[in-house]
Amino acid sequence: MSSELDGAGQGNTEYGRKRFKRSRSHFADRITAAGEDGWPVAAGRYRLVVSRACPWANRTLISRRLLGLESALSVGVTDPIQDDRSWRFTLDPGGRDPVLGIRFLSEAYDARETGYPGGVSVPAIVDVPSGKLVTNDFQQITLDFATEWTALHRDGAPDLYPEALRDEIDEVMDGVYRDVNNGVYRAGFATGQDEYEGAYRDVFRRLDELSARLSDRRYLVGETLTEADIRLFTTLVRFDPVYQGHFKCNRNKIAEDPVLWAYVRDLYQTPGFGDTVDFDHIKRHYYEVHTGINPTGIVPAGPDLSAWLTPHHREQLRGRPFGDGTPPGPPPEAERIPAVGRP
Amino acid sequence: MSSELDGAGQGNTEYGRKRFKRSRSHFADRITAAGEDGWPVAAGRYRLVVSRACPWANRTLISRRLLGLESALSVGVTDPIQDDRSWRFTLDPGGRDPVLGIRFLSEAYDARETGYPGGVSVPAIVDVPSGKLVTNDFQQITLDFATEWTALHRDGAPDLYPEALRDEIDEVMDGVYRDVNNGVYRAGFATGQDEYEGAYRDVFRRLDELSARLSDRRYLVGETLTEADIRLFTTLVRFDPVYQGHFKCNRNKIAEDPVLWAYVRDLYQTPGFGDTVDFDHIKRHYYEVHTGINPTGIVPAGPDLSAWLTPHHREQLRGRPFGDGTPPGPPPEAERIPAVGRP
Repeated sequence: MSSELDGAGQGNTEYGRKRFKRSRSHFADRITAAGEDGWPVAAGRYRLVVSRACPWANRTLISRRLLGLESALSVGVTDPIQDDRSWRFTLDPGGRDPVLGIRFLSEAYDARETGYPGGVSVPAIVDVPSGKLVTNDFQQITLDFATEWTALHRDGAPDLYPEALRDEIDEVMDGVYRDVNNGVYRAGFATGQDEYEGAYRDVFRRLDELSARLSDRRYLVGETLTEADIRLFTTLVRFDPVYQGHFKCNRNKIAEDPVLWAYVRDLYQTPGFGDTVDFDHIKRHYYEVHTGINPTGIVPAGPDLSAWLTPHHREQLRGRPFGDGTPPGPPPEAERIPAVGRP
Repeated sequence: MSSELDGAGQGNTEYGRKRFKRSRSHFADRITAAGEDGWPVAAGRYRLVVSRACPWANRTLISRRLLGLESALSVGVTDPIQDDRSWRFTLDPGGRDPVLGIRFLSEAYDARETGYPGGVSVPAIVDVPSGKLVTNDFQQITLDFATEWTALHRDGAPDLYPEALRDEIDEVMDGVYRDVNNGVYRAGFATGQDEYEGAYRDVFRRLDELSARLSDRRYLVGETLTEADIRLFTTLVRFDPVYQGHFKCNRNKIAEDPVLWAYVRDLYQTPGFGDTVDFDHIKRHYYEVHTGINPTGIVPAGPDLSAWLTPHHREQLRGRPFGDGTPPGPPPEAERIPAVGRP
C-alpha cells in the first residue's frame, strides 16, 4: 500500500502505528465556469467516480442530485470492496467502467501523473476524452458544483452555498469536518487508548453541540438546505450502522438522540439524500476492508433500518428545504439503489 | 492454550476455524446438604472464585447475595484479564488469593487432577483445606445454592428454584441458555457469515419472545425472582456495553427495547443484582482479551451508563421480587464495586 493510506475515500485496509492523519488531496485542480485550471465546466465531458460506501464521495452524489447535474455529469460506481489496486469497476460488465474503459480508478491517476506515489481516493472526477484524473479534492468538489456548475443546474435547484451565509457555513463545516466527519475515523483507527478516547470525546462533544443547535432549527445554517447539512448527513447516516460499533463511537446511537435522529431522518427522506445511500455498500466496505479492526470480515446483520422512513416531525420547525426552489425528481433509473441496501 | 478454549468463563483469547461450541464442565461434583459426593455444605469450608467480567460467574455472585451466603462462602475475584495461564489473582496483595494462597486458579485445578488437560473456567468452587477444585459446573452451582445450601441461607432469603415451578423455570432457562447466554457467544465467535447470521437470528428471536413474555409480568416465571431471571440478567446487563458491538448483536440495543430495558434496570436496581456488576471489569475483559476480534485491544468509552438508575416503573406489574421474604442488605464492605465500574 502507499504511504498515504488515510486520504479521503481510500478505505485503507491497514493503518500504521502513528496517529491517524488524513492526507490532503493531491490533485486539486478545479473545474470552473471560466476554466482557469484548464478544466471548464461542460456537460458530458467529465465522469464522477464514487464509492457509495464512502462518506466523502456521498457528498458529491447528494450535491449532484440536489442540483440536477445527473445528465451533465455521469457517475461511475466502484465496488465497495477494494483490492490491493484500490477502487475497481468490478460491478460493471467485464469489470470495466463503461465510459472510461478502465478496470481500476488508479488508471486515471496514472494517466494524469505517471508513477503517482499517493493513494487512490474517491470522489474523483475524470476527464473523459483524455482519461486523466482532474481532481480528487473532496473538500472543493461540491463547493464547485454549487458555485461553478451553475449554468448546468436544473430549474429550481437550491443555492447550497449562498454568499451571504458562507462565513457561517464554513465555520460550521470546519467543526463538523474535524470532530465528526474525520473524528469518527480518528476514533476508529486509533492505535492507542488515549488517542481513541480523545477522538471519542471530540465526536460526542461536537454532536452534542450540533444536537443543541438543531433542536429549534430545521437546518444547520439559514432556513434551507446547505452544503453544511450535506456534510453532516453523510457521517450521521453511517453512524449507527458502522461508526457506533466498528469505530467504537458508542456513547449512544444517533437513534438515541431525539434531535439528531429526527434531523437525519428528515434529510434521508428528502429527495437527493436517502436515494444516494446504499447501506449494503456501506456496511460491506467498512467491515470487509478494515481487517485491521475486524479480522473476521463478518458484516453485522443489524441495525434494524425500518425506522428510517418513519415520521420525523421536523417540518414543524422553521425552514424550507429548497427555499424558493423545488426538490429534485427521482434518480435516473440506472442509479437506483437496489432494495438490499434500503430500509 | 488448551483444546477446550470455549468453556464457561474461560474468556478464550483464540477460537478455531470450527463452529463455536461451549464445552461441558469437567468437574461436576456437587456440594450438597448430605454430601453424597464427599463435599457437604459447610460454612467457611469453600471458596468461590469468580471473574466479575464473566456472565456465568456473575450468576453465582447474584445468587450468593440474594440468599445471604456471603459469610458462609467467601469469594475470590480474579483479574479480568487472563494471561496464558488463564485466570490469575493479580488484584490481590502479592498477586495471591489471600485464602487459597495461589497465584493462578489453575493451581486449584492441578491440585484436583494432575495434568488436567482442559480449560480453566470460572465460576469455580475450591475446597479451602485441601486447595482442590470441587466444581466448575456453572449450570449446577447456583441451583445447589438455592436447594442444597438452605441451612446457611439468610432469614428472608427467597426461594429461587421453587419446586412447583421447576418445569417452567427449566424450560425458560433452556431457551435463554441456548439462544441468549450462549447465543451471543455463537454470534461473536462465529468464523463465517452464515454461522454468525444464524446465531444473530436466534438471539433476537429469543429476545423478542422474552420481551413479549415480560410485557405484562414483572418476572419470567411466577410472581417472584427466580433462577431464570438471574440467568437472563447476566447477559442483558452485558448486552449494550459488549455484545451489541463486540459480538455484532446489533439489531438493536437493549436500551431500545422498552420492555427488556425496563426489566433489566428493575433487576439492576434490586439489591443483589446491580451491586455485583462491574462494568469496568466486563468491558476490559472482553475487549482486551479477545484479540481475535479486537486486535487493537482498545476498550470503548461508551455506552453512557447514566440511565441504569432511572425509574423503570416495573413495580406497577404484578410480582413481588422476594415473595414473602426480604431483600438482602448491602454487600460486605470488601466486595463493593469501585465507582469506575458503576453508572
